[in-house]
Amino acid sequence: MGIIPAGINTPQIIVDVAKLQQNIDRVAHRVASQGLKLRPHAKTHKMHEIAERQMNAGAAGLTVATVGEALAFALHGVAKIFIAYPLWVNESQAERIMELMRRAKLSIGTDSVEAVQQMAKMLGEKASKVKLIIEIDSGHHRSGTSPQGAVEIAEAARALGMRVHGIFTFPGHSYSPDGIDAALNDEHKALAEAAFLLREAGHKIKRISGGSTPTAELSDNSVLTEVRPGVYVFGDAQQFELGRVRWEDISLSVASTVISRHEGDAQIPRRIVLDAGSKMLGADRPAWATGYGRIAECPEARISALSEHHATVLWPEDQPLPAHGQQLQVIPNHVCVAVNLVDTVLAVHEDGTSEEWDVAARGLNF
Amino acid sequence: MGIIPAGINTPQIIVDVAKLQQNIDRVAHRVASQGLKLRPHAKTHKMHEIAERQMNAGAAGLTVATVGEALAFALHGVAKIFIAYPLWVNESQAERIMELMRRAKLSIGTDSVEAVQQMAKMLGEKASKVKLIIEIDSGHHRSGTSPQGAVEIAEAARALGMRVHGIFTFPGHSYSPDGIDAALNDEHKALAEAAFLLREAGHKIKRISGGSTPTAELSDNSVLTEVRPGVYVFGDAQQFELGRVRWEDISLSVASTVISRHEGDAQIPRRIVLDAGSKMLGADRPAWATGYGRIAECPEARISALSEHHATVLWPEDQPLPAHGQQLQVIPNHVCVAVNLVDTVLAVHEDGTSEEWDVAARGLNF
Repeated sequence: MGIIPAGINTPQIIVDVAKLQQNIDRVAHRVASQGLKLRPHAKTHKMHEIAERQMNAGAAGLTVATVGEALAFALHGVAKIFIAYPLWVNESQAERIMELMRRAKLSIGTDSVEAVQQMAKMLGEKASKVKLIIEIDSGHHRSGTSPQGAVEIAEAARALGMRVHGIFTFPGHSYSPDGIDAALNDEHKALAEAAFLLREAGHKIKRISGGSTPTAELSDNSVLTEVRPGVYVFGDAQQFELGRVRWEDISLSVASTVISRHEGDAQIPRRIVLDAGSKMLGADRPAWATGYGRIAECPEARISALSEHHATVLWPEDQPLPAHGQQLQVIPNHVCVAVNLVDTVLAVHEDGTSEEWDVAARGLNF
Repeated sequence: MGIIPAGINTPQIIVDVAKLQQNIDRVAHRVASQGLKLRPHAKTHKMHEIAERQMNAGAAGLTVATVGEALAFALHGVAKIFIAYPLWVNESQAERIMELMRRAKLSIGTDSVEAVQQMAKMLGEKASKVKLIIEIDSGHHRSGTSPQGAVEIAEAARALGMRVHGIFTFPGHSYSPDGIDAALNDEHKALAEAAFLLREAGHKIKRISGGSTPTAELSDNSVLTEVRPGVYVFGDAQQFELGRVRWEDISLSVASTVISRHEGDAQIPRRIVLDAGSKMLGADRPAWATGYGRIAECPEARISALSEHHATVLWPEDQPLPAHGQQLQVIPNHVCVAVNLVDTVLAVHEDGTSEEWDVAARGLNF
């Protein structure tokens, strides 16, 4: 850390390019050594510069959450894209999906017979070209179906001349400090059961896709064929507090400035206020998190409150309170939402030079 | 409600223009009838179309949070701008502030002697043209100084040839269901004491600025000269649950689509999943809120979980579960952060026609 370029305005996201590249390479190597493909989730970074580095490190393609994100990367030359989301395709989306299919090999998530029927109706004869990937609920209880439900969806797809290519799950309940092992187990069990039932029913299941950043590096190919981590390129306070990212590997922070300070008295605790608020960091705060983010220069400090343009930071008694105007690096709790708040980030190279990178797929919510 | 234009992609923010205008007019009238000026906070909407409507309804100027927001509105012709934030002015910000001063009458917040000295140093002879507005901490304990601290700041400003024009506070502790009356009282008490001490020390205090959306309509001119509400133009789930906005006055919602549904069983509660997640709604959830937002079509439903592109909605047992593909309007918890996530909103007029409005000051964090 300690890489804020001189004279910049704050708050501003800065990326340590050397650390970013190390994270990309380390996870690519680790996942390959486990006999798995890596299909990184690009919703985290939304940047062409980072997608290119991931593809160069051997990624099997990119994962995205929306048609808009898929188009942004396909137009930039990414040839294989997985929209890991149970899309409801209306007429306007159908046109965009057809354009996408002219540019990339496309796989799309689904978790219902109704959504498959709608896709068949909207895409017409092109529907047979889509690789359907059925979402399994492995315990997070958000979207996704049961292993038995997957068979019903696959039967409906076959009747419509569509292809089920694989299954996926998001073990979101791994996002708690003691939930990772259990979630990993749930993920493998649900996917193994769904794959077994689908194969019994005569469906060729080629892709079995799992894994979030907490579980990806712990996965092997006993059940899965691939993993889809996203956050690993940057790391964030949440993953650090989950024990899944090392402090020294975190490659993204928010350069911010001390705009108010208070030495503390009987009424009000000792604190500084930084100019990075929820419009810069996002407001994510899981129940188990120790605050709204961390301070790179002082791991003991805690962000106790966040408003749109203020982070209130409780400062340890045994360390000098930073001065007005001092710049500090804030590590956001959840980096995916922080990046989605800005149009550019400042990429800082090892030699101290920096350049702006566009967050090309920012805000593409549909 | 019920104003989603046919065939649109979701998630997308839609604004009911008739209700928006009613809110602008009602609060303008109410505030004027209490003998107060209205200096609306434009951080909520960031749109020229809405700023114009506020100015046309008699606003005394606009309030903003950053130099970037100030420039966006000044370049569009707003002549009086208050940056209600304790700025730390570096060289690059100084240049932008000078440009701003060529276009608008500018007042700037401060809460420390150090920040005033820095401003004097960076702005040079132009510093005397800035109206300083000292921020008082009235109990929210974020930024702001004490009434006695305000006198010290005013003395330092005078010694540097700068002008203290007024004082302001943000009674953020009014954002709780039973905190509004106490916060209103704290606000008036702190501002009255600061104004008294400053006037005793020979400073002409012309502006005494208070008020957030919860307190603005309850304020009078016994202490204040003006209020700075922001959210009132739209309303949101937070203000509704605080009892400060009526359900039928809420003018902004997020058109979203049912992408997954589950009738419920012994393991998993009855729910739908909408495609509006935290990258669309923001993740704000105060401890007293009943969820992550509300559903316009079903006030009894609750958003129990939010991820980046999913809202999990618990649906009442006595009402039919919406079908796949059905579109619903989500009311965000905190509208300021939702608007800041999109580049445009869809403004829907009373006759059913619609147009895109740019969120011109989106993401201008510095």
